[in-house]
Amino acid sequence: MSEPIPIIGGTGALGYGLALRWARQGIAVVIGSRKPERAAEAAARVRATLPNAAVEGLPNDEAARRGPIVFLTVPFRAQSETVNNLREALEPGQLLVDCTVPLAAAISGKATRSVGVWQGSAAQQAQEMVSDGVTVVSALQSVSAPVLADLDTDLDEDVLVCGDRKAAKARVAELVERIPGLRAVNAGPLEMARISEQLTPLLISINARYKTHAGIRITGLPDDDHWG
Amino acid sequence: MSEPIPIIGGTGALGYGLALRWARQGIAVVIGSRKPERAAEAAARVRATLPNAAVEGLPNDEAARRGPIVFLTVPFRAQSETVNNLREALEPGQLLVDCTVPLAAAISGKATRSVGVWQGSAAQQAQEMVSDGVTVVSALQSVSAPVLADLDTDLDEDVLVCGDRKAAKARVAELVERIPGLRAVNAGPLEMARISEQLTPLLISINARYKTHAGIRITGLPDDDHWG
Repeated sequence: MSEPIPIIGGTGALGYGLALRWARQGIAVVIGSRKPERAAEAAARVRATLPNAAVEGLPNDEAARRGPIVFLTVPFRAQSETVNNLREALEPGQLLVDCTVPLAAAISGKATRSVGVWQGSAAQQAQEMVSDGVTVVSALQSVSAPVLADLDTDLDEDVLVCGDRKAAKARVAELVERIPGLRAVNAGPLEMARISEQLTPLLISINARYKTHAGIRITGLPDDDHWG
Repeated sequence: MSEPIPIIGGTGALGYGLALRWARQGIAVVIGSRKPERAAEAAARVRATLPNAAVEGLPNDEAARRGPIVFLTVPFRAQSETVNNLREALEPGQLLVDCTVPLAAAISGKATRSVGVWQGSAAQQAQEMVSDGVTVVSALQSVSAPVLADLDTDLDEDVLVCGDRKAAKARVAELVERIPGLRAVNAGPLEMARISEQLTPLLISINARYKTHAGIRITGLPDDDHWG
């Protein structure tokens, strides 16, 4: 039995979709929200879909204490405040997987555009803000939330994982690949999140033209297990 | 018989690879270079590989006059000067397909990093510089030059096409898809080149980790012909 996966902002579209996908694999998840009642409601929704799901809803800080690898799935405009509020909760050795995309939607702009982040990327902003010993890994921005939440749809795409330590990325990759149809690809150090975060507005632009929920695949990778 | 495809900077790795792939399909190509003797030498190399190839080597400005859809495949540090030198040669109605990537390598930096372009992207810089009536389309940055040049390797990847007019993008897409294994994907207006140009340093970062020449695929697109 693996440890639960805390999902901060798990009431949002991406976090909720991840919760469903992991719960279906028999993995325990903890949905975090600023508002405990919204977290509980989202957990109840997961159980309504998957009656055997091991899922709890808790305030963000309590959720973050429940597992070693914490996923951050809040909108960009809430990212900084949320990470700040987690400073006490997150402990050295924990991983924070930042899934934030700095969409211009955060400032009433288009979802096909992004805003510049001083640190270079939302993930680097998160790394600057967490306590010493907490490692930020960037992942999962390019996976469509509506597709995740539709359990009848098979996934067939890659997840770019950026981070400064391969061992940390490998732990995240293992959780990503517990979801059937997702392959984790090592995209390099955390600074590469400057680019991987930009794939989301690019995919949103493609989605508008093709009326779809597109994802990304990296071609030409060798078949052997990069993470093993 | 279709019109020839001028490739400005066709002596470089990307341009030469494209020349080979199109020439193999029986499409006439014109390799442009600042130095006529280098253009002629590259054309001779294409003919050495493909004896029936319809290929010429010419100075860039002469090459640019030989076909309606001109591909620009120079390194970023030469892009601005090259486009400036083409101002007289390019005529209203011509398309300039910018394949430039603003890699930090242009300023002795890493190939996994990029430099900021004032206009937002190399393609937008090109659009600002060309004469009125010349339309810039952005494409082909993510295709590996060594893979293109190795005719024994089958391609299997997408090419993101950005531009402000779908009709112009469709003409470029048609040429892209004349190369077997390449699919052209409409990624939106020219400003999206800010993101599509960044895929190259991302892929270079992935290549370093996987010892490969990676490409990109967009998943989840409908099967019908977007460009038809």
